[in-house]
Amino acid sequence: MTADQTELAELSKLVIGVLGGTGDQGRGLARRLSIAGHQIIIGSRDESRATAAAAGLGGGPLLTGALNHAAAEQADLVIAAIPWEGHKDLLASLAGPLAGKVVVDCVNPLAFDARGAYSIFVPEGSAAEQAAAVLPDSTVVGSFHHVSATLLLDPMVDQMDLDVLVLGDDRAATDLVAAIAGEIPGMRGVYGGRLRNCGQVEALTANLVSINRRYKAHAGLRITDV
Amino acid sequence: MTADQTELAELSKLVIGVLGGTGDQGRGLARRLSIAGHQIIIGSRDESRATAAAAGLGGGPLLTGALNHAAAEQADLVIAAIPWEGHKDLLASLAGPLAGKVVVDCVNPLAFDARGAYSIFVPEGSAAEQAAAVLPDSTVVGSFHHVSATLLLDPMVDQMDLDVLVLGDDRAATDLVAAIAGEIPGMRGVYGGRLRNCGQVEALTANLVSINRRYKAHAGLRITDV
Repeated sequence: MTADQTELAELSKLVIGVLGGTGDQGRGLARRLSIAGHQIIIGSRDESRATAAAAGLGGGPLLTGALNHAAAEQADLVIAAIPWEGHKDLLASLAGPLAGKVVVDCVNPLAFDARGAYSIFVPEGSAAEQAAAVLPDSTVVGSFHHVSATLLLDPMVDQMDLDVLVLGDDRAATDLVAAIAGEIPGMRGVYGGRLRNCGQVEALTANLVSINRRYKAHAGLRITDV
Repeated sequence: MTADQTELAELSKLVIGVLGGTGDQGRGLARRLSIAGHQIIIGSRDESRATAAAAGLGGGPLLTGALNHAAAEQADLVIAAIPWEGHKDLLASLAGPLAGKVVVDCVNPLAFDARGAYSIFVPEGSAAEQAAAVLPDSTVVGSFHHVSATLLLDPMVDQMDLDVLVLGDDRAATDLVAAIAGEIPGMRGVYGGRLRNCGQVEALTANLVSINRRYKAHAGLRITDV
């Protein structure tokens, strides 16, 4: 194996927990990262729903469901794909099992009205910064905000076509999450700045919703010249 | 001529004023839109600086400089490429000559410290919404936020490589600005939502600054699946 292949093999040994993994975004990421070779634990408030979601994605010993707390405890790295409602409380309740781990927040605080989607004011500045505030012993990274759950879940889509921005204040953690994003064919992780600049990345999802409506698309971003 | 060519010829007859057109962003847009066939009036608080900027870009009868007020008065469509400092006051002072016109705001309210760029809180939600608040008789569109002034001004760069998001509440105006963006080779205007979703598009420029630092790039966005 080349050095790159060795690194990729090491990377794929990471057990990934997906909190709120019964939602579309969580299931989509679980599916793609499972295909990439990771052991995945789908977390939910309801264990039977978690188990059913895992089974729906193929199941087996490497793709299981558990309560959020157990998923947080057993995983090496955790993706928070939970609804914005309850985001703060759920993460705060998991501060113990998430201590010392990288937590990837992909939550977009959005609301919808007759004119479409818009971003919700977050006192901490962003969902990711809120996560960092209630998880002082974890390393929070913001990423995977702009990826279409529909495309992640579509078995006819072999290749994604987007870059995901990876934001955080810890270089090792953002490099790790960028590498994980890069395991999904067609997806690339691009460092997108410090956590204090995550609010606009989350809010930009409202613009992608507008683009999708106007152009009947599943829009994503590519970063040019990188 | 085909229908498309006729439309393009009509479009290029629009006289475009560039307020704050002596800055890099303003000169860059003036340069590219002048090459696309538009008559351009570069506006400044200082007429001699405006005239010098126009001359520096080639000058001639189709690329001239004027005071901001005269540029606003004489142009069919105006691009506000002014500094965030003074943005509100300058536009408010031009409400008369800008009445009835499309005003394209490309201003990014950013600040910089030792950790890089970050977005400044804007009470109206965004620079574009602030423009709309002080220009009640104009049609404000937000666009051209993410384009690199360095690349716009570089004579070795024939083709830009990015999409610019075009935001606004008036379909005819956003279509017009998207068409103007499309006159610059390699650039595409993509509708990006209503004005209320412009704040995050402006703020995202801070992320592009981070990307440029990390990757030594002039990063831009492409929207996939559109």
